[in-house]
Amino acid sequence: MDYAQLYSQIKLKGSFLCVGLDTDIAKLPPHLISQALQKGESKESAIFEFNRAIIDSTAKYTVSYKLNTAFYEASGWQGILQLERTAQYIKENYPEIFLIADAKRGDIGNTAAEYAKAFFEKMPFDAVTLSPYMGGDAVAPFLKYEGKWVIILALTSNATAEEFETLKVDGQMPLYEAVIRKADEWGGGQNIMFVVGATRPEQLAQIRRIAPQSFFLVPGVGAQGGKVEDVAKAGMNSQCGLLVNSSRGIIYADSTERFAEVAAEKAAELAAQMRLFLG
Amino acid sequence: MDYAQLYSQIKLKGSFLCVGLDTDIAKLPPHLISQALQKGESKESAIFEFNRAIIDSTAKYTVSYKLNTAFYEASGWQGILQLERTAQYIKENYPEIFLIADAKRGDIGNTAAEYAKAFFEKMPFDAVTLSPYMGGDAVAPFLKYEGKWVIILALTSNATAEEFETLKVDGQMPLYEAVIRKADEWGGGQNIMFVVGATRPEQLAQIRRIAPQSFFLVPGVGAQGGKVEDVAKAGMNSQCGLLVNSSRGIIYADSTERFAEVAAEKAAELAAQMRLFLG
Repeated sequence: MDYAQLYSQIKLKGSFLCVGLDTDIAKLPPHLISQALQKGESKESAIFEFNRAIIDSTAKYTVSYKLNTAFYEASGWQGILQLERTAQYIKENYPEIFLIADAKRGDIGNTAAEYAKAFFEKMPFDAVTLSPYMGGDAVAPFLKYEGKWVIILALTSNATAEEFETLKVDGQMPLYEAVIRKADEWGGGQNIMFVVGATRPEQLAQIRRIAPQSFFLVPGVGAQGGKVEDVAKAGMNSQCGLLVNSSRGIIYADSTERFAEVAAEKAAELAAQMRLFLG
Repeated sequence: MDYAQLYSQIKLKGSFLCVGLDTDIAKLPPHLISQALQKGESKESAIFEFNRAIIDSTAKYTVSYKLNTAFYEASGWQGILQLERTAQYIKENYPEIFLIADAKRGDIGNTAAEYAKAFFEKMPFDAVTLSPYMGGDAVAPFLKYEGKWVIILALTSNATAEEFETLKVDGQMPLYEAVIRKADEWGGGQNIMFVVGATRPEQLAQIRRIAPQSFFLVPGVGAQGGKVEDVAKAGMNSQCGLLVNSSRGIIYADSTERFAEVAAEKAAELAAQMRLFLG
């Protein structure tokens, strides 16, 4: 998927929402586990059934799903199987959706090439989040895939982000800015996005000045305290340039048999707030 | 496993070798794939059979195995199943071995907790490599497991390590040094190691002065050009303090039916070089 296609989906749906499928087996509505076991399936298959219901109910309000790999890895190979099933389900049924693996990988070239295989060949993701610590080697193998994206950690929304990300490097700029500027040498705005946390709108505005064209993946709305309005005002560019993620506030809004319906209501609320800024 | 137990194994075996099981299904000796298929097993099960043969032949020369998760993820859930089987096989048959997941994960607290579950509960790893970019949040959940370790990326051996890792931060020290000093606040030498590349012995010596007590995991010997002698002279402390990794130079030294035997010869050569420095 390219920049123009993504922007076109955002306009069509009136939403720049990304729904985070951080699906924790310990937080699933209990009836899903019982149903899986009654059908003679693994309890992990309830992860997929949960995701499918959330996806079918929220797809009209969102342009992107982000699957946080940690939550699937915690269930071992059976969890990875549900990650694969979910990614395939989305691509088969909602091919217009921008599909993100939130994996935060980062390793030397020959290893990065294996991660790229995992997410772009074995699974049909459009984008993978990457850590920049080891430099461009960790990113280059992913950029060889046409139509695929990397999303580089710049300034994250967690409490200890300031331990390193905001340190001044070479007496000039914060580390996250050095990352954004270096990434410009790795590839263009057509295949590199940045993670920029929602909890610091003033820094989001500053980062927009550094990278006027780039898409930003913005976590931290909802459970972590960020607001759609603040993010939109600080971070939008002329082609939107934002994917705003919400995970827990949508997928765990309800844990009864109505969970998917309530998730849709929460996603619709966020999308309605976003539409105001899409003109 | 604690510091004293690890050092005791190093003395007992006269080796501080870590064998890297970066097992690439495309590089397996062809007869292993044929055998797996003839037995009606998945072709991915040949990954486990390869690892098992390498492990049984090299265990007497090594104190550690490092499994690079990317190579398993590239084969999807069937690859993760082989990762799990390999980790369990090592812990059941060689419980004295220090078992490392080379995963380079790094994410906010609730996500890091899921990765810790994956590697320390679902699988029996003793240690996980982590990226420090997001700060202590990404590390804390792992440190709650007694007897388990994290291995933080400090100065890596890849070509683009200098894009960020060696930048001067706050006008004082390179970023990798800031990482090592900050890690001291997260936990002690009993559960934090650092990744320090072998390709820069002069920097290894300098890092040893910054962290005199810590264990360093040193990749880059062999295929990447580092030498055991240089690493030992620059990096050892009074309790060894080193795990020197070799992957491709051991596991792919031969691709015939003799692969495990040749791997053992290569591991034995490295261990013999190491023994000279263990006095």
